[in-house]
Amino acid sequence: MNKLNLRLVNNVETNIHILDGLINDCKSIIPDYSQFIIITDENIYNHYGQLLINQFYNTNYKIITCPPGEQIKSLNYVENIYSDLINFKCDRQSCIVAFGGGAIGDMSGFVASTFMRGIDYINIPTTLLSMIDSSIGGKSGVNLTAGKNLIGSIYHPKQIIIDPKLLETLPSREYHSGMAEMIKYGLILSKELFDTLEKHLESILSDLSIPINDLIVNCIDLKINIVNQDVRDYGIRNILNFGHTIGHALEACLGNEYIRHGEAVAYGMLYAAKLSNVKGSLSDSDLKRVIKLIGKLELPKLKNMDIDKILSFIKNDKKNVSQDIKFILLDSIGKAYVSQQIKYDDIKMVLEENEYISN
Amino acid sequence: MNKLNLRLVNNVETNIHILDGLINDCKSIIPDYSQFIIITDENIYNHYGQLLINQFYNTNYKIITCPPGEQIKSLNYVENIYSDLINFKCDRQSCIVAFGGGAIGDMSGFVASTFMRGIDYINIPTTLLSMIDSSIGGKSGVNLTAGKNLIGSIYHPKQIIIDPKLLETLPSREYHSGMAEMIKYGLILSKELFDTLEKHLESILSDLSIPINDLIVNCIDLKINIVNQDVRDYGIRNILNFGHTIGHALEACLGNEYIRHGEAVAYGMLYAAKLSNVKGSLSDSDLKRVIKLIGKLELPKLKNMDIDKILSFIKNDKKNVSQDIKFILLDSIGKAYVSQQIKYDDIKMVLEENEYISN
Repeated sequence: MNKLNLRLVNNVETNIHILDGLINDCKSIIPDYSQFIIITDENIYNHYGQLLINQFYNTNYKIITCPPGEQIKSLNYVENIYSDLINFKCDRQSCIVAFGGGAIGDMSGFVASTFMRGIDYINIPTTLLSMIDSSIGGKSGVNLTAGKNLIGSIYHPKQIIIDPKLLETLPSREYHSGMAEMIKYGLILSKELFDTLEKHLESILSDLSIPINDLIVNCIDLKINIVNQDVRDYGIRNILNFGHTIGHALEACLGNEYIRHGEAVAYGMLYAAKLSNVKGSLSDSDLKRVIKLIGKLELPKLKNMDIDKILSFIKNDKKNVSQDIKFILLDSIGKAYVSQQIKYDDIKMVLEENEYISN
Repeated sequence: MNKLNLRLVNNVETNIHILDGLINDCKSIIPDYSQFIIITDENIYNHYGQLLINQFYNTNYKIITCPPGEQIKSLNYVENIYSDLINFKCDRQSCIVAFGGGAIGDMSGFVASTFMRGIDYINIPTTLLSMIDSSIGGKSGVNLTAGKNLIGSIYHPKQIIIDPKLLETLPSREYHSGMAEMIKYGLILSKELFDTLEKHLESILSDLSIPINDLIVNCIDLKINIVNQDVRDYGIRNILNFGHTIGHALEACLGNEYIRHGEAVAYGMLYAAKLSNVKGSLSDSDLKRVIKLIGKLELPKLKNMDIDKILSFIKNDKKNVSQDIKFILLDSIGKAYVSQQIKYDDIKMVLEENEYISN
């Protein structure tokens, strides 16, 4: 089993366990609590609900099954969960177990961080994206009409339990979406990872049963290193938002039924790479490699783009300080930086040329 | 000026400034932010709004004026505040300034801790209770129908600015309510403070213009010492809840219009002292002193008490671990401890004898 340790500057510690089949033995590593509240979604419940229940059968546990998707990341939905917790007579010794993708983790983490001023929780991510990205680093969040994750907290789970075998039932589309975040790590932090993906992404995507455990561990390791340097996201952690400024706006404009988070980030990275090239930092040859690798992902077409609407979402994005646009650019493949110099017109310009995908 | 420093174990630091008239010079100690959002209530605004605005006149600031009282400590109200912040184009460099009593501080702190995953805030408490208790220690909270402060966070303000001169306009009733928490500090932590209050409380209450700055500093000092030992409230910090188990239930049953927080805590302390005596830890003579000192406070009469309803609120109280009742008792004046041995019948018994007040 791979064990990684996210020991944060303020001495909060999250143990991350990674092992094929771990879902069938996870209770052996989970401490005792007075009650477990398992929060999952209908899809995950249908595939793996019984396996997880088998692990908790001799504990005091309850299950909350949510509809799949981003709709649960709302304050209204969170209020319903609070009511459930009250009805279940949860106390501060109860533990929430988030069992699902990014939406389940984000919403459950927010509930855990705010119920009775914070109770423990354990995250068992089930999608590639949540295994390598959203489960790591303690960000929880729910959405407002004005934008994604505008409400949330930074609150770390006690444990993250990753079973890569769960990916076997992950829909191909979600797999591609997660791979976009993997490419991101290569682009911003590791030329070696990018090189590896250049070599193997095509075969991985053509046979989703190829084990990618080493790649998962590699990504988590890269993220832990960044989070530990800047837990509250005021400095270097910002670079993890590469591709997310435009990505979030695309999600907001097109909706998560039409475009998944990773898919939107894939487009966001294309635009950000183009902007990096226009601004002189990223070479033409590196830009071509970025376009080619991202082009291997299956992405929904961007149609009827309302560029002014996208720009207005970017203006409301929480990462923007007042009227400056904070934008993550690439120096080269494997090296990102935060620019405060980007103008809305620059973004508008790259959005207007939206034909970067070539296979 | 008295300056106290709440430097928490995880290296979060809150600077606490205490000085008569500080409200007229507070901007000199407040750092720059891109925007200030002052959250206050109508009463405070009428008394001191203009004074505070004078301090912020050359900054980018907005004011949100809430109705007075506990009604603002709800998720619905918090959603309205989030909308205001979005409309004001707040970003992560904005700062919330809570200017009011405990309800303003609790609600504003919760908003600050969750908006964009946490923005800075400054607390300027205006009541005795919030100066010596609720502003110190980072607890924020909003209420659910099922109970008080069931949703919240532990999130520390950057600064706490205390101007005891503001107490000059504090209604006598709120002054008495705050004094209940001051008596609490004496009971659980400091025989010296209790002795002082025995000597002077009567004259202080008969002339509310007598300066009590030293007493305020004494209480804050006592609280900082406890909070620093147990920021997340899993151990010794529990003793600060002395009088609060029954107190919260009385508030929930009678409503905050009829009984203020401190008033309810005063009754809660009487019952807890009685229970301490019944359980053998508190001597008869100490119990008499407790009853006599609390008896100097003007409290609303407890009428038509539905004891079963009070007990059911206690059962839902977040401090109760599963079916055990965690109850804070006194060993002697100045020394408290956490008991796990109290039964609901014990509480019922002391509630049924509710005639402890003698002037």
